[in-house]
Amino acid sequence: MNSENFSLSEKIVSSSYIRQGSEARRGHEQLIRQLLEQGKCPEHGWSESTIELFLSELALMDSNNFLSNCGVGEREGRVASSLVARRHYRLIHGIGRSGDIAAIQPKAAGSSLLNKLTNSIVLDILRLSGVRSASSCFVVPMATGMSLTLCFLTLRHRRPKAQFIIWPRIDQKSCFKAMITAGYEPVVVENVLEGDELRTDLEAVERKIEELGAENILCVHSTTSCFAPRVPDRLEELATLCSKHDIPHIVNNAYGVQSSKCMHLIQQGSRVGRIDAFVQSLDKNFMVPVGGAIIAGFDDAFIQEISKMYPGRASASPSLDVLITLLTLGASGYKRLLSERKEIYSFLAQELKSLASAHGERLLHTPITPFHWVSLNSYCLHNDKAVTQLGSMLFTRQVSGARVIPLGKEQTIAGHTFRGFMSHSEAYPWPYLNAASAVGITRDDVTVCIKRLDKCLKSLKKEAAKTIPDVLLMRSSNKIE
Amino acid sequence: MNSENFSLSEKIVSSSYIRQGSEARRGHEQLIRQLLEQGKCPEHGWSESTIELFLSELALMDSNNFLSNCGVGEREGRVASSLVARRHYRLIHGIGRSGDIAAIQPKAAGSSLLNKLTNSIVLDILRLSGVRSASSCFVVPMATGMSLTLCFLTLRHRRPKAQFIIWPRIDQKSCFKAMITAGYEPVVVENVLEGDELRTDLEAVERKIEELGAENILCVHSTTSCFAPRVPDRLEELATLCSKHDIPHIVNNAYGVQSSKCMHLIQQGSRVGRIDAFVQSLDKNFMVPVGGAIIAGFDDAFIQEISKMYPGRASASPSLDVLITLLTLGASGYKRLLSERKEIYSFLAQELKSLASAHGERLLHTPITPFHWVSLNSYCLHNDKAVTQLGSMLFTRQVSGARVIPLGKEQTIAGHTFRGFMSHSEAYPWPYLNAASAVGITRDDVTVCIKRLDKCLKSLKKEAAKTIPDVLLMRSSNKIE
Amino acid sequence: MNSENFSLSEKIVSSSYIRQGSEARRGHEQLIRQLLEQGKCPEHGWSESTIELFLSELALMDSNNFLSNCGVGEREGRVASSLVARRHYRLIHGIGRSGDIAAIQPKAAGSSLLNKLTNSIVLDILRLSGVRSASSCFVVPMATGMSLTLCFLTLRHRRPKAQFIIWPRIDQKSCFKAMITAGYEPVVVENVLEGDELRTDLEAVERKIEELGAENILCVHSTTSCFAPRVPDRLEELATLCSKHDIPHIVNNAYGVQSSKCMHLIQQGSRVGRIDAFVQSLDKNFMVPVGGAIIAGFDDAFIQEISKMYPGRASASPSLDVLITLLTLGASGYKRLLSERKEIYSFLAQELKSLASAHGERLLHTPITPFHWVSLNSYCLHNDKAVTQLGSMLFTRQVSGARVIPLGKEQTIAGHTFRGFMSHSEAYPWPYLNAASAVGITRDDVTVCIKRLDKCLKSLKKEAAKTIPDVLLMRSSNKIE
Amino acid sequence: MNSENFSLSEKIVSSSYIRQGSEARRGHEQLIRQLLEQGKCPEHGWSESTIELFLSELALMDSNNFLSNCGVGEREGRVASSLVARRHYRLIHGIGRSGDIAAIQPKAAGSSLLNKLTNSIVLDILRLSGVRSASSCFVVPMATGMSLTLCFLTLRHRRPKAQFIIWPRIDQKSCFKAMITAGYEPVVVENVLEGDELRTDLEAVERKIEELGAENILCVHSTTSCFAPRVPDRLEELATLCSKHDIPHIVNNAYGVQSSKCMHLIQQGSRVGRIDAFVQSLDKNFMVPVGGAIIAGFDDAFIQEISKMYPGRASASPSLDVLITLLTLGASGYKRLLSERKEIYSFLAQELKSLASAHGERLLHTPITPFHWVSLNSYCLHNDKAVTQLGSMLFTRQVSGARVIPLGKEQTIAGHTFRGFMSHSEAYPWPYLNAASAVGITRDDVTVCIKRLDKCLKSLKKEAAKTIPDVLLMRSSNKIE
Repeated sequence: MNSENFSLSEKIVSSSYIRQGSEARRGHEQLIRQLLEQGKCPEHGWSESTIELFLSELALMDSNNFLSNCGVGEREGRVASSLVARRHYRLIHGIGRSGDIAAIQPKAAGSSLLNKLTNSIVLDILRLSGVRSASSCFVVPMATGMSLTLCFLTLRHRRPKAQFIIWPRIDQKSCFKAMITAGYEPVVVENVLEGDELRTDLEAVERKIEELGAENILCVHSTTSCFAPRVPDRLEELATLCSKHDIPHIVNNAYGVQSSKCMHLIQQGSRVGRIDAFVQSLDKNFMVPVGGAIIAGFDDAFIQEISKMYPGRASASPSLDVLITLLTLGASGYKRLLSERKEIYSFLAQELKSLASAHGERLLHTPITPFHWVSLNSYCLHNDKAVTQLGSMLFTRQVSGARVIPLGKEQTIAGHTFRGFMSHSEAYPWPYLNAASAVGITRDDVTVCIKRLDKCLKSLKKEAAKTIPDVLLMRSSNKIE
Repeated sequence: MNSENFSLSEKIVSSSYIRQGSEARRGHEQLIRQLLEQGKCPEHGWSESTIELFLSELALMDSNNFLSNCGVGEREGRVASSLVARRHYRLIHGIGRSGDIAAIQPKAAGSSLLNKLTNSIVLDILRLSGVRSASSCFVVPMATGMSLTLCFLTLRHRRPKAQFIIWPRIDQKSCFKAMITAGYEPVVVENVLEGDELRTDLEAVERKIEELGAENILCVHSTTSCFAPRVPDRLEELATLCSKHDIPHIVNNAYGVQSSKCMHLIQQGSRVGRIDAFVQSLDKNFMVPVGGAIIAGFDDAFIQEISKMYPGRASASPSLDVLITLLTLGASGYKRLLSERKEIYSFLAQELKSLASAHGERLLHTPITPFHWVSLNSYCLHNDKAVTQLGSMLFTRQVSGARVIPLGKEQTIAGHTFRGFMSHSEAYPWPYLNAASAVGITRDDVTVCIKRLDKCLKSLKKEAAKTIPDVLLMRSSNKIE
Repeated sequence: MNSENFSLSEKIVSSSYIRQGSEARRGHEQLIRQLLEQGKCPEHGWSESTIELFLSELALMDSNNFLSNCGVGEREGRVASSLVARRHYRLIHGIGRSGDIAAIQPKAAGSSLLNKLTNSIVLDILRLSGVRSASSCFVVPMATGMSLTLCFLTLRHRRPKAQFIIWPRIDQKSCFKAMITAGYEPVVVENVLEGDELRTDLEAVERKIEELGAENILCVHSTTSCFAPRVPDRLEELATLCSKHDIPHIVNNAYGVQSSKCMHLIQQGSRVGRIDAFVQSLDKNFMVPVGGAIIAGFDDAFIQEISKMYPGRASASPSLDVLITLLTLGASGYKRLLSERKEIYSFLAQELKSLASAHGERLLHTPITPFHWVSLNSYCLHNDKAVTQLGSMLFTRQVSGARVIPLGKEQTIAGHTFRGFMSHSEAYPWPYLNAASAVGITRDDVTVCIKRLDKCLKSLKKEAAKTIPDVLLMRSSNKIE
Repeated sequence: MNSENFSLSEKIVSSSYIRQGSEARRGHEQLIRQLLEQGKCPEHGWSESTIELFLSELALMDSNNFLSNCGVGEREGRVASSLVARRHYRLIHGIGRSGDIAAIQPKAAGSSLLNKLTNSIVLDILRLSGVRSASSCFVVPMATGMSLTLCFLTLRHRRPKAQFIIWPRIDQKSCFKAMITAGYEPVVVENVLEGDELRTDLEAVERKIEELGAENILCVHSTTSCFAPRVPDRLEELATLCSKHDIPHIVNNAYGVQSSKCMHLIQQGSRVGRIDAFVQSLDKNFMVPVGGAIIAGFDDAFIQEISKMYPGRASASPSLDVLITLLTLGASGYKRLLSERKEIYSFLAQELKSLASAHGERLLHTPITPFHWVSLNSYCLHNDKAVTQLGSMLFTRQVSGARVIPLGKEQTIAGHTFRGFMSHSEAYPWPYLNAASAVGITRDDVTVCIKRLDKCLKSLKKEAAKTIPDVLLMRSSNKIE
């Protein structure tokens, strides 16, 4: 309603009420103004009505919603299904242009604004979460793995001779495949066992650099967020090494935004050494649907170079999701989520500890684990069958996300064979079970999980007393996910 | 409502009515049954209530909607904003697994089913639209350009020595960048002018192959859908050439599904020669939001290899959009859209012809243009300024999609300089204007466009009579989009 | 977005695009302006995006959506469920105030505006549909019957001595109960048979007036829309009679807005005689959910008096539905619906005629029937069982709305016994079947109905040839609805 | 998804996952089963996905959603606008039949089920909230006032001679008008002042009964929920009186469900004496949009008689809202809301007390006030202008719901003049201000209100020190609402 329409309304409904309504509208406009002005995540979450007002305003600025538009191109933002139009708030044109995923679309001022603002808000949150000196980022509608691939492909143009990527081992398929897909040979550096923890073998990394020659190495590809007993890579030292040898450094920070430790490591790494980009998942850190990632860094030019490598327009869906979510939560809401996560992490550790001791087990001691993986090596997991069976039992009881890690599993991915797969080590001494406290977890999740786990362990012990019957292996990976 | 609940309902509301309600429910179930059984796009569109029933049923099968699930993993499909949850019908887990975008997720049976069914329905539609022997396809939540990149990256593993991609010129940035991003050197083959049309220079292609050596060539990258006066590549001949030289052949069919001619070319090419994959945009062919593509082919193993190259899970959003759209339209609805497009294409041609003759212009004669680009070389476009001004005028008058193509523009992309950029030729004889009839276009679009165009031309003529004043160039590309 | 926010946006996205977006927004505002200015149904329907923009603007003007409101009253428009808030577009305060359903609410300028505009648009449509001199109306969230009751209760204060309402018989329960509920004694005037038609017995009406004394009569309560073979009351004559005897006249125009004949009768009645109010259903005339009615008339003071009789606020839901619907359709869309209804009426008549003659039946000749009821007296309906069975068969075959009318049924409502109930006559000569062409009907409805009816009749004939078995009576009324 | 469709799905996605999905679905079905079986409000709230599943299941049972329905009646549940269809979850047929608002509709088994279940759940909640022996109730889509009218109209048939309704004064328009609309003469019984409180004058009531004669009295119309300093009527005594004189007793319990005191009074009244029906608002007690009420009682036959008085079908919208809300909250959630209300009531009292003493005022002592009205007599409210100005100031500062009550206001409603209107008394000794703690109120509401009120009072005092300037009276009633 513009002022003219408010005036007309005063002829229908008494003016003092209309004026109050118009005044109240200004409150919403004011919030939008602050957002446009500052490009930051608002401290306090917006109401759904402000959010929907804002999105409908954005949509009105896209040509597919112009009342008098006529379209004679091949891409006019037409939508066949009204269900589809509605679920996208009629923002149809996606983000970016053929040349650059961060570019502005002439046909879609609203979608372009959405794209710019989302990137700006997300950067603000990355900074608030600990990487204070991050200078640039963008949301990309691809998984973390594919986003890493995009980073590697961008580096190719800078380092045409390189064939290798140095990668301290972490047993997760997609980050390994990210390198393969980009056409590089991953150089796997095994971790070293310190206490219960698996840590980066810095010497081995440096040895590999010298062995292969810095110019033949595309980058070091390190990892922050991971499951105990593997702990985050020694980022400061790796960053220093990269700086020293003039090798790019890409960090896989998949679910690390929610961990102040991971974020701190990146901040420190960038301060003392070199980090070219760090990549994180949208869904794992911001409680949105799967499918987006944030590529961030400290050098605007390089981040922009990556954004220009994405050929073609892209889905605005992940940007829209994270925008709605952050406007709903506000910075304070997001911080509250993070601190709740931390609290429940302690609660989970404590509960697992009690459970472990009740079953004659122990909780692995992994103090460096920045946040959320807690492990338990279980006596009744004395053979592969039992391990598999526990996984299967948990799945059936709707405990999702817990992983049972057996010993000595072998897995070949793209020609590379990993011994002791899933344990991040060729010879981790014990099988164990992982449980995480990730953003959004509730006390109920923990309580129910512990209860069910207790039942499973009891039942396994009973069986272990007898001869163990053959169990139908649910799936070879034993991974419950 | 299961049968028990229907029985209970009969105690509350008289049983004959409940039984009729239960009977009626079976009608919806029956439609779902056919879909599950046949994996084909239903002939007749579904009602919104059947579609929403189906989607809510799928969502219930995903673990994030289990009432008694407890999640202790790092990715549990939690959603912070109910606006976000709703717009995704609570399908949060995306598609695919770390290993393969087409893989099944243990945590998300419903999303997995959605993924499989969408791919199956889309394959059905590709066949119905003319590529009858297509054997496999999948939807990928990336633009056409990035999807082409994925195809090239997949081929890299088969052809490690290759450095070049042969590419008959088409002036569209993202398909060019797709090759650059993948790390290859595009070998641009200029088109030849035949009458008003620009066609593939087959001899030049073969010459290049011989010159560079087949083993050094990753693939031939051809194009079907394009703007007149460039016409679709000679696909049969290129496919034969590829077959002869044992070179892979990737076809950019961006908005070609809507054109029986483009689809026919692919079908013929695959029959007489070699086509490894053809890639098309979701938004341009199916009236859904920007952000998805279909990668299809004739060899299941190769298509699966591509799907396995995508590292990590991916957004289900484009799959969901195209699924909803095709279920809404039904095969018959989609075919009707295509035939309407054809009719309006003729109408547009006729109207442009009249307009052209009224202004002393002519419609370019481009009979091979499979479908929808019609051109007009305009006398008053006698200098760059006028050309630019026409573009600017159309933009202001909310005519979107029309492109005004000047002469002699130069553009450098990733180090490669294109002379006569936008005209697909170093020396096209005339400037011209393009207007398309794309799926979803209405008669109104045409009528209004012609009217506004007429006004613009009249006003330009008037000005041309005077000295032409300097116009503020809107953007360097002159492209109205 | 106010102008300040547009300016800020120009710093983020290039100004020419933002300016175009802002310009396009003005298009929507312009439509709203016209509505506010003229208070008429727009000629052309609005897009969903304009409608939702408008509703969200209205909602922002209600205090429950003020960002800085604090509420310490007993009714603050708080909503516990976000599903509920959303489905009402956050318009929570209903319409009216304790004193008057048409009054303005200080707490809810937006809802008040909605209420006023809806009444204004609906009045426009009533005029367009034929009652050109209607001067005032309001939407009330009650069924037609209860709305009639409200009219009678209002008249009570004008005619405190009156105990009777004169009512030409129509066999429909709720309009009869409307009088009972208001506390009056209905004086049923039987219809007379003219040809196949049942028409108002004017002499009997006048006789009753004289017999009871005008001052003891609250009003004449006549009916327009009804099922053949009863035809609309002789409204002109009744209105003249009422005028002559100074008796109020309330018209039940339940589904008559869709019939130009019914509307014409009201217009004529008001011109030559007296009509105090006419009441019509929202759902039956405007394709909205059940639950609202329009009370309209020619004397503003009386209509306002009725609106002031409703004690307390009321649901805005029916007003919202009809507002959305009329803005979606536009006046032209509504008129198109009406003309389609007429066409299908003819089609239905023709199809029934063919069917009738094929079965040796005949279509009742009821030319005065303003619109949509077509009847068929069927030989095989030779006994009550067969009649009931046909009703039952049609119900089972999902033919809804068809009524099979037996002979000689008796029904007692509130102490009054109707002989020949459902046939509007104590002794209609034949049983028959009714089928209507109501607004929104499709050709498919007719074709399918005729096909199923044909099957039923064939099967009944077959049975009639044998001894007729007992059928389980579905329900005593035989009414298929 | 029926079992057949689950089986088919197992061919597409691995069976263990599908089986788990199907198992999980059963969880939702189970909740629905309990609801159907017990007809009670579930203890724990349902998730939105269960609620929407349930509503979509109900909708599928209505004939307008049958895939093969053909409709040839005048009311087929067709909907012109998809926005409208969606917002009603495609439940279009409303509730009830022409004869009875609680009746089952053959065309709409789902809507009928919704209606029955809602009434059943609401009854459960009334019992839980304190009226344990309530035996019957129904939701009616009308405001409290109109619902009271319906009760009176029903009684008319039982007491044809009666002309009067005895009504202990409460200054609220709609309950007064409810009697007028029904055609009765309200006999206003003034309250007596006891301390600060205004209480029922029982002797005056009995005197009136004897004076008018019991048979001439339709009923006693008492009130529970009201603003201090008027307190709830002496219900036990009134009920005993009614029983003794064989006079019906209708209780206006508008916003009393949220108050255990009001509910207790009704329960006690029904135990020791006579209460025929008690009526409460949906919006004020259940945080749903305005427009519905619950008519409840202890005698099934009488409640059913009322439901049969509503002539015609009715809107399902209020039933749907309260159903969704109660399923969302669950019984435990509703009880939590009530106990929060109580807590904030104490907080509000305390804050007002502090504020009062800071300004040299006092909090009225009204211990019998069941719940939420707190009053403050303010020295600076020394004249009418100041009182009005305070009202105006609060309105402007977006404090809604606070009422400023002046002295000696006169108001005439339907011919009856109330002296001291708004204060429930002809001569209440002080002006005062009301603030309520109603269900859904937050601590923030209280804090902000107190702060703004403090500012207003300060500013008024300052002005009082000067000569008081004329203020533009906002509206004559001084009521801020």
